[in-house]
Amino acid sequence: MIIQIIGVGHIGGSLAISLRENGFASKVIGSDLDAAALDKALRRRIIDEACSWKDGLSQADICILAVPVDAILKLLPQVLDLVDQQTVVDVGSTKEQILNLVDQHPNRGRFVATHPMAGTEYSGVEAAIPNLFDHKHTVICEVEKSEPDAQEKVADMYRSIPMKMVFLDRKAHDLHAAYVSHISHISSFALALTVLEKERDEERIFELASSGFGSTVRLAKSSPDMWIPIFRQNRDHVLDVLDEHINTLAKFRSLLIKQEFDTFYKLIEEANRIRKILE
Amino acid sequence: MIIQIIGVGHIGGSLAISLRENGFASKVIGSDLDAAALDKALRRRIIDEACSWKDGLSQADICILAVPVDAILKLLPQVLDLVDQQTVVDVGSTKEQILNLVDQHPNRGRFVATHPMAGTEYSGVEAAIPNLFDHKHTVICEVEKSEPDAQEKVADMYRSIPMKMVFLDRKAHDLHAAYVSHISHISSFALALTVLEKERDEERIFELASSGFGSTVRLAKSSPDMWIPIFRQNRDHVLDVLDEHINTLAKFRSLLIKQEFDTFYKLIEEANRIRKILE
Repeated sequence: MIIQIIGVGHIGGSLAISLRENGFASKVIGSDLDAAALDKALRRRIIDEACSWKDGLSQADICILAVPVDAILKLLPQVLDLVDQQTVVDVGSTKEQILNLVDQHPNRGRFVATHPMAGTEYSGVEAAIPNLFDHKHTVICEVEKSEPDAQEKVADMYRSIPMKMVFLDRKAHDLHAAYVSHISHISSFALALTVLEKERDEERIFELASSGFGSTVRLAKSSPDMWIPIFRQNRDHVLDVLDEHINTLAKFRSLLIKQEFDTFYKLIEEANRIRKILE
Repeated sequence: MIIQIIGVGHIGGSLAISLRENGFASKVIGSDLDAAALDKALRRRIIDEACSWKDGLSQADICILAVPVDAILKLLPQVLDLVDQQTVVDVGSTKEQILNLVDQHPNRGRFVATHPMAGTEYSGVEAAIPNLFDHKHTVICEVEKSEPDAQEKVADMYRSIPMKMVFLDRKAHDLHAAYVSHISHISSFALALTVLEKERDEERIFELASSGFGSTVRLAKSSPDMWIPIFRQNRDHVLDVLDEHINTLAKFRSLLIKQEFDTFYKLIEEANRIRKILE
């Protein structure tokens, strides 16, 4: 299978590595507006060939769009305009606006909307790593709107990694993503800013930071080029979850002020239920 | 050196492992109100002998208080009442109330207040692990109030692990700890509650949780028995930092509502400065 990756970054590059390693891809073609990233991907042998997205598309069996979600909005209709028997799949973190955009496209059936739920706080081809997706879940959105052979190719691709598939509609995906991914990033960015602000006066504060602090602010290293477009597209759901999160923090604040530590204790016990979910 | 550990849990047990392994301790005596924990510590050979804290103290060179910070408030004055040439050291996450309590104690000089900045979200002797403290920082509080031989013994102990020492007064310690440790826990507990609340309706939400989510809520597994006493004792600093954190989140909320994504982008770039601090 000839795989084209448009956007040879952390996600696209890591997918390329996995699909080559497991034999699903016989050839990987890379396309990227950033010529330096393409060169690096070639030198690291993450891709076999670099070319423009149009030239790559004409050779590909599967074309994977692994660019930020604002770039997907621009690129996807153009790709679908030129598509013939190829299967086009995106790996973006939002789904509603992307699907709204191509609902009426004559080649809509060639497209499969997906979101592999994996990634790190790092970006760029330098951050492409093996095994990033192994045994994680990938969301497939409104799969019934894709033609059967396209559905099959994408399912085969994710199964080859292997990843487990979850089927959701666009709204359910964006709501779930806000809860289990987007709010974590908002929270980390905010926590990093809060503590960095303090650091201006207290230079040595970070000597004392333990691994617990590192864990909660890890995602604050994430790129705004990736995340601002996500927050823009999933604004309403992110706002809903953010409101709930601020309310929970405000409840903690009020319990501290009133010194109601028994109630606070019970809430922490409740939060501990997360143990059964995270290993 | 004969080391007594009062409170054979995650921190006390891990310290015992390190101090035995590196040869600093010739014998480790464990004391704990929880008989089952003591048995387990004996069977795991984390301690050589189990006895009451009073019996242990009479044999020990260094007595380490590794109990929750509310128990330190109760126990420390009693230990100092009985102390002769022994060195007493606590490893609690707060310092101001503990030091206020013993300022006037006739044996104050035998006590060294410390806070090794390490730990995980797990608790109990089952969570005692090797190398937990290696190359981390430990805060020594108002060291000048400890007698020279006690200072020396505790410094030798931490250097043997090896840990780096940072010297702070009680107020500076509690402020710093609020920023680099306590607020991370508050944030994780709140995030876990926010998402667990949603899970009641959406059972499958956690299938989609990626490692990023796991990272930000990891600390929400932490025990309320340890954390409520910390929040109680460090309430004022925790409230200050929590207010700042809520303000930052409210700023994000307002930027989302007004769709001021350029400003939001700049704030994320600023948050990215955390990269230079965390490896």
